[in-house]
Amino acid sequence: MSSLSRELVFLILQFLDEEKFKESVHKLEQESGFFFNTKYFEEKALAGEWDEVEKYLSGFTKVDDNRYSMKIFFEIRKQKYLEALDRNDRAKAVEILAKDLKVFATFNEELYKEITQLLTLENFRENEQLSKYGDTKSARTIMHTELKKLIEANPLFREKLAFPSFKASRLRTLINQSLNWQHQLCKNPRPNPDIKTLFLDHSCSASNGARALTPV
Amino acid sequence: MSSLSRELVFLILQFLDEEKFKESVHKLEQESGFFFNTKYFEEKALAGEWDEVEKYLSGFTKVDDNRYSMKIFFEIRKQKYLEALDRNDRAKAVEILAKDLKVFATFNEELYKEITQLLTLENFRENEQLSKYGDTKSARTIMHTELKKLIEANPLFREKLAFPSFKASRLRTLINQSLNWQHQLCKNPRPNPDIKTLFLDHSCSASNGARALTPV
Amino acid sequence: MSSLSRELVFLILQFLDEEKFKESVHKLEQESGFFFNTKYFEEKALAGEWDEVEKYLSGFTKVDDNRYSMKIFFEIRKQKYLEALDRNDRAKAVEILAKDLKVFATFNEELYKEITQLLTLENFRENEQLSKYGDTKSARTIMHTELKKLIEANPLFREKLAFPSFKASRLRTLINQSLNWQHQLCKNPRPNPDIKTLFLDHSCSASNGARALTPV
Amino acid sequence: MSSLSRELVFLILQFLDEEKFKESVHKLEQESGFFFNTKYFEEKALAGEWDEVEKYLSGFTKVDDNRYSMKIFFEIRKQKYLEALDRNDRAKAVEILAKDLKVFATFNEELYKEITQLLTLENFRENEQLSKYGDTKSARTIMHTELKKLIEANPLFREKLAFPSFKASRLRTLINQSLNWQHQLCKNPRPNPDIKTLFLDHSCSASNGARALTPV
Ligand SMILES: [Zn+2]
Ligand SMILES: [Zn+2]
Ligand SMILES: [Zn+2]
Ligand SMILES: [Zn+2]
Repeated sequence: MSSLSRELVFLILQFLDEEKFKESVHKLEQESGFFFNTKYFEEKALAGEWDEVEKYLSGFTKVDDNRYSMKIFFEIRKQKYLEALDRNDRAKAVEILAKDLKVFATFNEELYKEITQLLTLENFRENEQLSKYGDTKSARTIMHTELKKLIEANPLFREKLAFPSFKASRLRTLINQSLNWQHQLCKNPRPNPDIKTLFLDHSCSASNGARALTPV
Repeated sequence: MSSLSRELVFLILQFLDEEKFKESVHKLEQESGFFFNTKYFEEKALAGEWDEVEKYLSGFTKVDDNRYSMKIFFEIRKQKYLEALDRNDRAKAVEILAKDLKVFATFNEELYKEITQLLTLENFRENEQLSKYGDTKSARTIMHTELKKLIEANPLFREKLAFPSFKASRLRTLINQSLNWQHQLCKNPRPNPDIKTLFLDHSCSASNGARALTPV
Repeated sequence: MSSLSRELVFLILQFLDEEKFKESVHKLEQESGFFFNTKYFEEKALAGEWDEVEKYLSGFTKVDDNRYSMKIFFEIRKQKYLEALDRNDRAKAVEILAKDLKVFATFNEELYKEITQLLTLENFRENEQLSKYGDTKSARTIMHTELKKLIEANPLFREKLAFPSFKASRLRTLINQSLNWQHQLCKNPRPNPDIKTLFLDHSCSASNGARALTPV
Repeated sequence: MSSLSRELVFLILQFLDEEKFKESVHKLEQESGFFFNTKYFEEKALAGEWDEVEKYLSGFTKVDDNRYSMKIFFEIRKQKYLEALDRNDRAKAVEILAKDLKVFATFNEELYKEITQLLTLENFRENEQLSKYGDTKSARTIMHTELKKLIEANPLFREKLAFPSFKASRLRTLINQSLNWQHQLCKNPRPNPDIKTLFLDHSCSASNGARALTPV
């Protein structure tokens, strides 16, 4: 994608945000992979919306891209696993182990086995390293702090953490400029040209009304 | 939203689609409520992705907007319920009954009771009216045909079922026109102006390079 | 079974009870169907051990023997059903409805439908007739009081509710009498005959020791 | 319990068996701990009725009595665990691991960990040592053969595996002898004494009828 096309995506992101199309904003952030919204990510991580957390991340990195990415996914899935254990949903915990955490077994078999062993404890806090795990809320906050560091250190997120700076409603400004351009080409320009649509180029002669040029 | 702003959303939808930002497209269709993508809806309905089916619909109507909308949601939730029964997941079936279908009890108590009674049958096809229910695939197809009719008859979907017609890459065309407009304002226009960004207005004097005007 | 054989079962029941073979006692009460232990039944009913409650009852009556029996089983299964609903185990509740309560649909379809409808309530106490249902403990006590009345009125339990009266350790007494009889037949009876086994008849000549006749 | 009391239990076992009070027989075998019915045990083990299998065993030994007993319980619970895994009931499998198999972790931690790890496999047959595990039926048969050997070698079961030999209906024979003894004590014995009950000692003078002495 050319540099200007890339910028156009940012203009659209701004427009969608100004129009309060919130989910569209984040979906486009993810699908373009141009801007990682740390605030949105924090919100979803603290809410424990693991599917959305992973889906959003997937727009920027895969689990095996580098060791930061691997650690990011590991921390998220471990938290998901511990929460399943904590609410006594062992069926879900085993599923997470077999589906989500399995990938890490290749890299650290001992760790994977130790995590599996937690299943057999009445309370995983019996494990020494987890003895200070508090409630879900505090654990998620700690996990998020860790994720933040990993994301900031991860080269794949470099220059994607800050939204570029430009004036409000920039896309609308450009659209208005394009309308000016269209009118300027009119052979017999009227003083208050009527712009009825963006779908077709304006032309004063084609217009039968006489409304003022309304900005978008 | 003004008519031109509305059109701008359509230009963005076209752009997102051309750039293959598929989920962003459907999220924006939903959040704007300007265009109901029947093909996407069919795809999700036939795949039984009920959460997405209802979420997408929610951009256009609520269950109690009119009798068409009510019937649309009822058909979807009934199908979801029958599928839960069919795979013997009675816990899920009761949940659907108590959460999703409950709203219809107010309007048709007898129907709601009859549906509830299906829970106690070994196979809901023992119920005469459901005796011809085939497998999941064929049942979804039949349901979708019904939904299609209801959506076409529903005034809330009027003029939202066809995407307006305009040339390809219309948004890019307008952006290029805006760049032309910017250059045309230059006091000392160069023959091959250099456009480096969309974020700021171009000006030949400010530019130190001399590249050709590259379209977006 | 002859009247004396029947009495022998009672002697065995007394023996098992005196020897603290508790489960054997109740299993024999059930399998013989000679004595319905109201105290044991109350204990199991108040503990909500529904499988054992029904199994024990099955030694004395079947659900369709008469209207008292039918009401007994209905009250038990209804309680089991309400408890499943109360602990939010809807999967279990539907199972009880489809397996245990289904039999009553033939006799009282309206009642069965009404009971099924409870599934769709957030709390079954929203149903007027169940609005006074308290906690599990009090509900079981009320149910048991009802069961007690039904059992006492049920002709199938007549004369099975009181254990016949006879002296302690009656079976041992009779066994000792049989040993006396065996010794009395000895041609050369010794003063302190040695009884080594119950498996074979005693005979003083066969005995080489000379121990006192030890009672069982 | 005296040796003769012990024999009385065997007489009762024979009586219950002859009268077809099957469950009472096995309950008394278990509660007395005098006779381990290998045929009944096999039947329950092959049927996978694990609760009854363990309950029956509990009449004879506890898990930590000796290494044979430990192995017996381990084999049973391992089979129960593998069957839960095999039918994809992971919630149940973890429960068995945490409740039933946990006790063995103290004695063989490595083994326990290895067994836990099976949870994370798609199919436990991927584990080399379990690669030859066939279907449930054949696995139970193999397990039972192993259990048989362990029980036969276990000193706690010594002399409990064979039922003592004595004539049919021995308890009835003894009861009849006791009746003979009672009648023989009558001051004015009638030729055809009437025996109406076992609950009280007979006496010809007290009797107003004149029926023949009926055996039990
Ligand atoms: Zn014009
Ligand atoms: Zn210029
Ligand atoms: Zn003698
Ligand atoms: Zn007599």
